[in-house]
Amino acid sequence: MQNKNRQFVLARHPDGMPKESDWSLVETPIAEPGEGEILVRTLWLSVDPYMRGRIAPSKSYAKGVEIGEVMQGGGVGEVVRSRNPAFKQGDIVESMAFGWQEHVVLKPAGTRKVDPRHGPIRYALGVLGMPGLTAYFALLEVGRPRPGETVVVSAASGAVGQVVGQIAKLAGCRAVAVAGEDDKLAWCRAELGYDAGVNHKTAGDLGAAISAACPNGVDVYFDNTAGPITDAVMGLLNLRARIIQCGRVAVSNKPGPDIGLRFHGHYIVTRCRVEGFLVFDYVNRYDEGLRALGRWVKEGKLRYREDIIDGFEHMPKALIRILKGENFGKQLVKVSDEPRG
Amino acid sequence: MQNKNRQFVLARHPDGMPKESDWSLVETPIAEPGEGEILVRTLWLSVDPYMRGRIAPSKSYAKGVEIGEVMQGGGVGEVVRSRNPAFKQGDIVESMAFGWQEHVVLKPAGTRKVDPRHGPIRYALGVLGMPGLTAYFALLEVGRPRPGETVVVSAASGAVGQVVGQIAKLAGCRAVAVAGEDDKLAWCRAELGYDAGVNHKTAGDLGAAISAACPNGVDVYFDNTAGPITDAVMGLLNLRARIIQCGRVAVSNKPGPDIGLRFHGHYIVTRCRVEGFLVFDYVNRYDEGLRALGRWVKEGKLRYREDIIDGFEHMPKALIRILKGENFGKQLVKVSDEPRG
Repeated sequence: MQNKNRQFVLARHPDGMPKESDWSLVETPIAEPGEGEILVRTLWLSVDPYMRGRIAPSKSYAKGVEIGEVMQGGGVGEVVRSRNPAFKQGDIVESMAFGWQEHVVLKPAGTRKVDPRHGPIRYALGVLGMPGLTAYFALLEVGRPRPGETVVVSAASGAVGQVVGQIAKLAGCRAVAVAGEDDKLAWCRAELGYDAGVNHKTAGDLGAAISAACPNGVDVYFDNTAGPITDAVMGLLNLRARIIQCGRVAVSNKPGPDIGLRFHGHYIVTRCRVEGFLVFDYVNRYDEGLRALGRWVKEGKLRYREDIIDGFEHMPKALIRILKGENFGKQLVKVSDEPRG
Repeated sequence: MQNKNRQFVLARHPDGMPKESDWSLVETPIAEPGEGEILVRTLWLSVDPYMRGRIAPSKSYAKGVEIGEVMQGGGVGEVVRSRNPAFKQGDIVESMAFGWQEHVVLKPAGTRKVDPRHGPIRYALGVLGMPGLTAYFALLEVGRPRPGETVVVSAASGAVGQVVGQIAKLAGCRAVAVAGEDDKLAWCRAELGYDAGVNHKTAGDLGAAISAACPNGVDVYFDNTAGPITDAVMGLLNLRARIIQCGRVAVSNKPGPDIGLRFHGHYIVTRCRVEGFLVFDYVNRYDEGLRALGRWVKEGKLRYREDIIDGFEHMPKALIRILKGENFGKQLVKVSDEPRG
């Protein structure tokens, strides 16, 4: 086993779209696990839009990354040394507390064992992890779709969006994908079962294009982006529509505050409900969500596309990639080979 | 009985704050009731912020007033001729379909008999009518206040706001008034039981002033105004706060669209819920609301202040008055003397 641990630490808080130079790659000695802790070798690291919020200097729902600290992020890895009887060497574990590093010392709280029999272990970062659970609870608990309703999903082929569309179809809804590339939209329709797709980069009049894809209006809007897509959907809401504010990737990289058209009048006219969502609020129900998602994956009802970059050194590039919408499917970085088993 | 009916018809759709010349006072013959209809002499006319939406050229939840049509509005009047067995001469009735006129022919649908034993008949336009029902259902059904929570109310001494504050107190909450005059705020505290008040015109740093009045943050925001008060409250929301979008009087007179800071990030961070409200959605539960409000009025638990202007010819001035926030209490116009009874 190597003695050095490579880590990415934050070099500066980006203003606008992050650059690779906003992080520094450093080497430190591999830490020793304390009593009750485990030392884990990183196999996969997740790359998610929420990370943009963690490197902003402003207050958010979670503590942000300070200059010089290891960049935050979730991962999947192999236990190489355990000082906790609940974990043994060779176990595969998932945690939000990996950070961008090749080895990590984890505490048992928040560390979940991954059973390789349930699918590829990297699914614990996607369809059988935080993005899948986000789609499941946000759509079903906040969106409350009814059969026959129309569900519009922004960032529809992303880590969350692709699961949302498929659950909307399972719930008997019309599912409409909004994404920024025609090949993503073609795949959403052919492979995921979305009924229609709109390319927000080429549509021209975005409101008219989404309206044409939603002949009965919009009942549920699963908002992963905010920004212009949201502006266009607001004019198409049916009475008592529900808007799930899950992400805001289209505006999180804009320098300064997000200034634009405001919708208080729409709220009153449509009596819609806008609600913010964070998956951690449902931590006590993760088992329920994972059972449902796992069953659908096993039955072939839930497909999941991943976009894999090989090599720990590419972490900053991978994050910038998803902030620009260049990924196609759930973005992962392969850090080291999985153990043979 | 006079033969002429004075009416205000819309002369133009105002751009920005309405002017008195946006309406024309005309005289027409008093109409004859058809089979099943009643002819009513107007006693009281209501003046409400929603009327600003009805004279905007843009689409809203209800059909707007066209140029040359009688201005829409609710009232209370006395039946002078009935061609419907359910109503007899001398009955007092309330309806949203009066319009700004001294006599009106009403159909039975939407016409409600007012029992003078339940309080002043003009209360049917206020605490025992649409504003009271708005406060009741919007606060209790959308806001869902829990004992110990903090409820902030904009336009706190208005037709709706004064009822909201008192119901919030009945529900065991801390109630915080926002209004534009110190005497209104003093009255909110002394007479209605609001725990604190903030003058949004003189506070300076409005966010700091509301924050000081809400040491435990904001759990429910009853928004009658939108605009700068709303912007200030958004930064003070507690986790899972509820925002009732009931009105937007602070921006409804701004020419052009309402452009400003947007709050998608706040939605996610706080997981708040924003929901538009329109009292007509609760029409099947009006009896329930009126029973509760009537009991509180009778028991002295619900006080209600009115701002009365005498004379039908002052209708445009009365509406402009409330759009500027110059009224103190529910704005009414006395059109003619009540019958002696």
